[in-house]
Amino acid sequence: MIQPNIPESGLPRVVIVGGGFGGINLAKKLKNAPVQVVMLDRNNYHLFQPLLYQVSTAGLETDSIAFPLRGIFKHQKNFIFRMAEVTGVRPNENILETGIGELKYDYLVLATGSTTNFFGNKVIEEHAIGMKSLIEAVQIRNYVIKQFEESLLLNDEEQIRAKLTFIMVGGGPTGVELAGAFAELRKYIMPKDYPELPVDLMKIYLIEGSPRILNGMSENSSQRSLESLEKLGVTVLCNTVVKEYDGRTLLLSNGEKLISQSLLWAAGVKGVPVTGISSNIVLPNGRIQVNEFNQVQGHNNIFAIGDIAQMVNDPKFPKGYPMVAQVAIQQGANLAGNILKMRKAASTLNLKPFKYNDLGSMATIGRNHAVAEFAGMKLSGYFAWMVWMIVHLMSLLGFRNKLVVFSNWFYRYFTFDRGTRIIIKRGAANIVKLRQTVQ
Amino acid sequence: MIQPNIPESGLPRVVIVGGGFGGINLAKKLKNAPVQVVMLDRNNYHLFQPLLYQVSTAGLETDSIAFPLRGIFKHQKNFIFRMAEVTGVRPNENILETGIGELKYDYLVLATGSTTNFFGNKVIEEHAIGMKSLIEAVQIRNYVIKQFEESLLLNDEEQIRAKLTFIMVGGGPTGVELAGAFAELRKYIMPKDYPELPVDLMKIYLIEGSPRILNGMSENSSQRSLESLEKLGVTVLCNTVVKEYDGRTLLLSNGEKLISQSLLWAAGVKGVPVTGISSNIVLPNGRIQVNEFNQVQGHNNIFAIGDIAQMVNDPKFPKGYPMVAQVAIQQGANLAGNILKMRKAASTLNLKPFKYNDLGSMATIGRNHAVAEFAGMKLSGYFAWMVWMIVHLMSLLGFRNKLVVFSNWFYRYFTFDRGTRIIIKRGAANIVKLRQTVQ
Repeated sequence: MIQPNIPESGLPRVVIVGGGFGGINLAKKLKNAPVQVVMLDRNNYHLFQPLLYQVSTAGLETDSIAFPLRGIFKHQKNFIFRMAEVTGVRPNENILETGIGELKYDYLVLATGSTTNFFGNKVIEEHAIGMKSLIEAVQIRNYVIKQFEESLLLNDEEQIRAKLTFIMVGGGPTGVELAGAFAELRKYIMPKDYPELPVDLMKIYLIEGSPRILNGMSENSSQRSLESLEKLGVTVLCNTVVKEYDGRTLLLSNGEKLISQSLLWAAGVKGVPVTGISSNIVLPNGRIQVNEFNQVQGHNNIFAIGDIAQMVNDPKFPKGYPMVAQVAIQQGANLAGNILKMRKAASTLNLKPFKYNDLGSMATIGRNHAVAEFAGMKLSGYFAWMVWMIVHLMSLLGFRNKLVVFSNWFYRYFTFDRGTRIIIKRGAANIVKLRQTVQ
Repeated sequence: MIQPNIPESGLPRVVIVGGGFGGINLAKKLKNAPVQVVMLDRNNYHLFQPLLYQVSTAGLETDSIAFPLRGIFKHQKNFIFRMAEVTGVRPNENILETGIGELKYDYLVLATGSTTNFFGNKVIEEHAIGMKSLIEAVQIRNYVIKQFEESLLLNDEEQIRAKLTFIMVGGGPTGVELAGAFAELRKYIMPKDYPELPVDLMKIYLIEGSPRILNGMSENSSQRSLESLEKLGVTVLCNTVVKEYDGRTLLLSNGEKLISQSLLWAAGVKGVPVTGISSNIVLPNGRIQVNEFNQVQGHNNIFAIGDIAQMVNDPKFPKGYPMVAQVAIQQGANLAGNILKMRKAASTLNLKPFKYNDLGSMATIGRNHAVAEFAGMKLSGYFAWMVWMIVHLMSLLGFRNKLVVFSNWFYRYFTFDRGTRIIIKRGAANIVKLRQTVQ
């Protein structure tokens, strides 16, 4: 019989669901606490999502942005990891239901992150490509290279254009960085790898619903990134929403039609709440309402942190904090302190409310081009790009990953090449099979 | 309609099927020749197979041992690549049938390599794991880590032992290197990642049919590698053949039974001939009989090189040359010269027969341990290990791959860690599903 096999330590058990930025920071901060920390994740690694777009555009290898969770905590004695899917919670009994059996908890922390949000549009969901997991990033990379390989086999220009038109939806950092990376593929890789295909057959669109891209940053940064993208040949459409998409024809809110076989969806994320948490406290975007201590409403010993948690305690963020790594990291740290306080005082008095320290934000558009805002400064261009690289490199977990990512970037900077443009596939002849279903 | 879309250049067309060691060396040597070189491969990359076993044991990332074929030939003007599966050949019409349409050739070179050989045992084939492709290596890595994760969920020692017993079949370099890598996983990674699992629950077997492992090398090298493996805790069984395996119980020729859920098959490879080549000239091991010019018997303008070709023109190799990279590389170079001669003389007279220059062989057993034989020298231990690393690093295509592989090795040497022990999977809860089918 399968069972979690987690020994009773005599200490209260903190079960953390999810090994993302929030979960691992919380677990780390509980290192010397008199608790047993149990982390569950469906994967056995922490994924550095901010660089996922570089995997999907053949700039980095998959394994260089993933770090084994067991490796992070190998010196932490009160830490136990199990690879498991959580299926539900029974709050009255303090029991978590998982694919490997039931687990008793004293404190439960939901740090499950978010998934791609198609805002209920099932047809778009079926045909668009999301980008939240490592396997999705690899699939995008495979798919993109296949579009080029298959274009060589066609003579009809319209069919080729449909294959070589790439549409990103969502003008946040992910959409902007993705569009920039595609523009660099066109500029540096396409002429070398596919000299038979005229470069102007490839088109890149970035579609944003609001009046400007990177609308979480200043107007100045928006403007500069818009200019950089347009200079790289990206068509940016603001105030525009995708109405319909059938895998080939895209209808925009302005009535315009685009033909493309590749719609990359970076227009939003949503939480995935756990069965057993009352739907009354779950918002339409899947986030769970928590108080200023990250406590899930109505439950003293259940918490939610990061993307899955909706906390409204700052007038600057009336709809809750942004779904970014920094919020998750800081909420994890704050919650660790509060769990320690609860252990000492055996009550929920004197807990420290969460206060968000906005460290700034940034986005890279391409070689030597980025925008960054932090500590009251607004940077753009080469210096912002250097800052972007250093911050991301330092934030990556593990010396090996830093070394491999740095090696790739270093190589790319001087050669204008992208090393990992390979298609890893299961079947043998599936390039032909795929084409037959697509046509 | 899909078609190969390869323009007529007015020059004779050399079609090379396969981008392995033989195919790429042939294409490179034809760089300045007055021919059109067309390469077809089902993948868009060249795979450095000698390091595949390090991917499957979490020592290297997948992408670091693969190099995009278009990248290799980006400066070669007479080279055209198409990603395609070859389905047959019609020699009388000089036509190659492929998944992307038909292709006319003047010279056809089959350089399709080899696949795992289960010697007709369908039951073993169904349950054993081969290791010839990148996706197989990733699947092995995923599978091995899963065995550990799942062992934590069991209480029955016998069930755990079945999961943690890894059996390699075949005592050639692949089997030896794989067994050594598994032994290092047990020695350096298991105690850190899975302190709950006693190390002696993990068992590693290497099974070889002949009287000694590495029987292509000297008795001295065999003996030293045997000692190194046994010192690392690998049980080596020579003169032993696998009779039956049902996915759990393994029956050996000596009557012994082993219980294991992981049988890794490195006991042999075979060629996969193309439909349209007469079966009279195809041997039971799938190799195509060629003459000393690599000409396929009965066809003036069809050639086979590397693993797929069986050439018997050297009394030292009465059953044909070994299926190793060096033979393929040298046959590719020799054939390039002969194709040039044929162009000049418009006949098959004066062709240069192939002569194998055995550069030696080597195998690494683990950290600081290898055996190497070349230029009349027999090395073992630390120095052989350094030679092994340098030769493999230099043979890797591309500066980026060299850099990333070196980074990984450098990191591993000083930390005793293996960085890429992550499970990349498709579904979400498949760890549980898999277990339910396995039990």
